Amino acid sequence: MIIDDINKFRDDRNWRQFHNEKDLAISISLEASELLELFQWKSVTEGISDIEKVKEELADVLIYSYMMADNLNLDIDSIIKEKLIKNDQKYPISKSKNSNKKYTEL
Amino acid sequence: MIIDDINKFRDDRNWRQFHNEKDLAISISLEASELLELFQWKSVTEGISDIEKVKEELADVLIYSYMMADNLNLDIDSIIKEKLIKNDQKYPISKSKNSNKKYTEL
Amino acid sequence: MIIDDINKFRDDRNWRQFHNEKDLAISISLEASELLELFQWKSVTEGISDIEKVKEELADVLIYSYMMADNLNLDIDSIIKEKLIKNDQKYPISKSKNSNKKYTEL
Amino acid sequence: MIIDDINKFRDDRNWRQFHNEKDLAISISLEASELLELFQWKSVTEGISDIEKVKEELADVLIYSYMMADNLNLDIDSIIKEKLIKNDQKYPISKSKNSNKKYTEL
Repeated sequence: MIIDDINKFRDDRNWRQFHNEKDLAISISLEASELLELFQWKSVTEGISDIEKVKEELADVLIYSYMMADNLNLDIDSIIKEKLIKNDQKYPISKSKNSNKKYTEL
Repeated sequence: MIIDDINKFRDDRNWRQFHNEKDLAISISLEASELLELFQWKSVTEGISDIEKVKEELADVLIYSYMMADNLNLDIDSIIKEKLIKNDQKYPISKSKNSNKKYTEL
Repeated sequence: MIIDDINKFRDDRNWRQFHNEKDLAISISLEASELLELFQWKSVTEGISDIEKVKEELADVLIYSYMMADNLNLDIDSIIKEKLIKNDQKYPISKSKNSNKKYTEL
Repeated sequence: MIIDDINKFRDDRNWRQFHNEKDLAISISLEASELLELFQWKSVTEGISDIEKVKEELADVLIYSYMMADNLNLDIDSIIKEKLIKNDQKYPISKSKNSNKKYTEL
């Protein structure tokens, strides 16, 4: 399991002591911004100029997200499945197909 | 595989047409902020008041991250492993153990 | 007026053409993250280690915010005053004094 | 001065006690995201659908930014002017005119 690799990296450095959930949430947000920065001032049709950087920043978002899940004993697949069920109710296929509207506007 | 559930949700609504990588990066960042908002003005020792909301917002970050990986044909486990190797070089155990300093300050 | 300095900087480079509001909103968010990064993993009581960087990143947030206001012909002082009136209604003094709760929880 | 209105709003509620710089930085980032959310999934040429919301979220970014400046005894106009001088060096007109490249790519 990939989470074991992540935890090993963390525990080799004895970093669990710093990983309160608030600071992990900050870190997820900062990494998400670094990912977004790769698209700053680019048009949506412009190709990705540096796929290696996209891979790195996306991985950082995922690593911190997995760390938060580990802190809280959450199973990644389970919370995704539960959220998809909720999203399915917020965005019924009949109303949201081909639409980019928010559920509040549907 | 959980990515199949995510893709089914997306394709049932025919939403792939909207999912350019720039807008996905924006969405990852916005969901990360909604997660962070749950910790706004809270002390780090304060317990999590609403674990259900944390699960939902963390799941949203993960769902959009998986969608971007799918767009770019990236394998989640592979990009995480590659990044951990890079982080291992940036943060050698000997220098970073028990330290919360940035690699630029080590 | 400081907005004149900002506009001169922009117009000397002929950058107004790139400054659609969506990309300005992305830039405000990215600069806010760079500001937040200066506090990553720090305790709230820890002093600011680099006030020069805080000044720079806070200035960047303000510069892009002023640019968006200029795009939309918004007067900074007016929109702040209007928002303070709305916040005053959301957070009546009698209920919110000494409280860090959200208006939804008051 | 508009900062006096902002400080009065804060002090009427006795909120200065909560306003450490780290939590203010989080709040600036969260408000910037709420502003960005108004442009989520929109094309850059699409008009702004709700200018009132843009005004409110932009004002929130500014209010928290002014609060941080007040905490640190920073003068808004001065830090903007200083940053424009630095940006002028990073982006010399001769190289950056009509270009949306980062200074690292110039």
